Amino acid sequence: MNFTTFTETELRNFTYNVFKKIGCSDAHANLATDVLIKSDLRGIDSHGVARLSGYVRLWEKGRINATPKLKIVHETPTTATVDGDGGLGLIVAPFAMQVAIEKAEKYGSGWVSVKNSNHFGIASYHALMAIEKEMIGISMTNASPLVAPTYANERLLGTNPMCYAFPAGKYPPVIVDMATAAAANGKLEIAQRENKSVPTGWVQDADGNPSTNPNELKNGGSLLPLGSDKDHGSHKGFGLSATVDILSAVLSGANYGPWVPPFVAFLEPPTDPVGEGIGHFLGAMRVDGFRPAQDFKDHLDNWIERFKSAKTIDPAKKVIIPGEPEHNFEQERKISGIPIIDAVVKDLNELAAKLEIGGL
Amino acid sequence: MNFTTFTETELRNFTYNVFKKIGCSDAHANLATDVLIKSDLRGIDSHGVARLSGYVRLWEKGRINATPKLKIVHETPTTATVDGDGGLGLIVAPFAMQVAIEKAEKYGSGWVSVKNSNHFGIASYHALMAIEKEMIGISMTNASPLVAPTYANERLLGTNPMCYAFPAGKYPPVIVDMATAAAANGKLEIAQRENKSVPTGWVQDADGNPSTNPNELKNGGSLLPLGSDKDHGSHKGFGLSATVDILSAVLSGANYGPWVPPFVAFLEPPTDPVGEGIGHFLGAMRVDGFRPAQDFKDHLDNWIERFKSAKTIDPAKKVIIPGEPEHNFEQERKISGIPIIDAVVKDLNELAAKLEIGGL
Repeated sequence: MNFTTFTETELRNFTYNVFKKIGCSDAHANLATDVLIKSDLRGIDSHGVARLSGYVRLWEKGRINATPKLKIVHETPTTATVDGDGGLGLIVAPFAMQVAIEKAEKYGSGWVSVKNSNHFGIASYHALMAIEKEMIGISMTNASPLVAPTYANERLLGTNPMCYAFPAGKYPPVIVDMATAAAANGKLEIAQRENKSVPTGWVQDADGNPSTNPNELKNGGSLLPLGSDKDHGSHKGFGLSATVDILSAVLSGANYGPWVPPFVAFLEPPTDPVGEGIGHFLGAMRVDGFRPAQDFKDHLDNWIERFKSAKTIDPAKKVIIPGEPEHNFEQERKISGIPIIDAVVKDLNELAAKLEIGGL
Repeated sequence: MNFTTFTETELRNFTYNVFKKIGCSDAHANLATDVLIKSDLRGIDSHGVARLSGYVRLWEKGRINATPKLKIVHETPTTATVDGDGGLGLIVAPFAMQVAIEKAEKYGSGWVSVKNSNHFGIASYHALMAIEKEMIGISMTNASPLVAPTYANERLLGTNPMCYAFPAGKYPPVIVDMATAAAANGKLEIAQRENKSVPTGWVQDADGNPSTNPNELKNGGSLLPLGSDKDHGSHKGFGLSATVDILSAVLSGANYGPWVPPFVAFLEPPTDPVGEGIGHFLGAMRVDGFRPAQDFKDHLDNWIERFKSAKTIDPAKKVIIPGEPEHNFEQERKISGIPIIDAVVKDLNELAAKLEIGGL
């Protein structure tokens, strides 16, 4: 696949201009840009600038509000519900995480459920905000329905990611950031582009049969929960996905399950919503609420060293510490730039032409 | 397999007498009994009275303290670390959950990490304590190392369960209570007793090859994380297990990873501990810290109804709401009694003879 490499600054300027052009404030445009570029820097190409034109199409349809008034609609000292006013999840989720962090600063922990939001980018962006404050960060979101629960032949859940981030000492933070499906939709899209089949256990066809066709979702099929089938614990993947859905949406008053609005503009939201927009859940806990922060970091460093030095089946393949590959991508791409595949460059330049701003 | 059915009261009395005989206070004996019987009632036979003689063997070796002084060693308004003083996890975890609940009553949420504890029974017992207060309950524990992370050929993590419990309205609570391994050790034990093979993806042999032999752990093999292999997301199961390990032990000062002491008395604990005992993590959040409790319950009821009525591949197999099978077991066994397999009855009667108390 062909690609062009851009500097971080080039991509930031372009992205900022897009958000400004649709009416975002300076602060919101900068923040939304930071979330998307962080994703590209960290090698999660499916969640970075590749999504820009999708956000704009939703804005064109009136399904994203570029000038939302974010507010806390319910709270206790350590819990809150935030109404995102239909804004970009890219700015709603950091607002909510900031609320969680401020509560944690005062009381040890803070937990915020969010309604009336949209796609929030990579979960780890928000969890990392807590890391900077020596806190443990947690972030989750529900998502448009693509996944069939165990035994079902219907898409009832999103790939509903959950992220847990822990600050280490001399090593990068441990960041578990994972879709609760066996494989996220982005992996299927890669197989589609490369015209390859996918492993059994990622998708089922429209009749619920196992399939290796990456295009199965377009034919009425479904993604499968982490675990893939009952024998291998797909009910656990379903349970995790349900947990994300309940914390993000049943708790906040967002749409849940099959009522979550689609992320794509060409599909209409359900006409019988059970809540407002999509939902997120964000949390922060002070490490020194449990033990001195340095003790925690020293032991987490020891944990990391023990796992990194584990005996492996193939000596060439070491145990991968969660978050380490993304950290390495970020170090490297900050220096050598961010490769964007041609199809995405073309899409972004068409977007620029439509919005009458400079292209990439 | 042959079994004898006992009433709940018969099993309670027997279990209480065992705990009293090893020196537990009345209150602790009653509580530990309640945790074990709840497990048998809920059909989780591997975690109920079947574990009694194992606890006693650890007590005989001085590895369980029957008269612990439980204390909070560090805290903020909503976080705390509890030192279990080497006590039964069956009583340490409820103490810690009570601390979390009291903090949540005052501030909206409460979070407690626990060190110096032992096996805590079923995770859902502790999470259910929060449900009774209209709170969301969370409980996790690390466990003796049986699971190899992705690519590893070493047992570095326990089956480290996580549990999330949510109060519903007219339906039983939604309770996600799951080992983060592809299959818990109890499932292998069933296959061993029945002399059956297990599905590929549950275990690997001592060389790291896939295996269907349920005895592989005895031969130096390992359990596999949820997801089973890299293609199917075993790095996610590893990440979840790591999350449980870090929240339970790195945060509290308990042993983590391969340093977690074995649950069986015939294996000695590591001679180079990195902390004290095993660790747990418990949390409680008031539902009405986010929205009126009745609104949450009404929507969770709606969530349950939608998933229960999902279109399924086989019309005879409905989507199972997490926690529903255990709830049904409990209703039924409270009336018709609890079946205990002969091997366990024999083991318990030998235990009774050794302790010079009445048998079953």
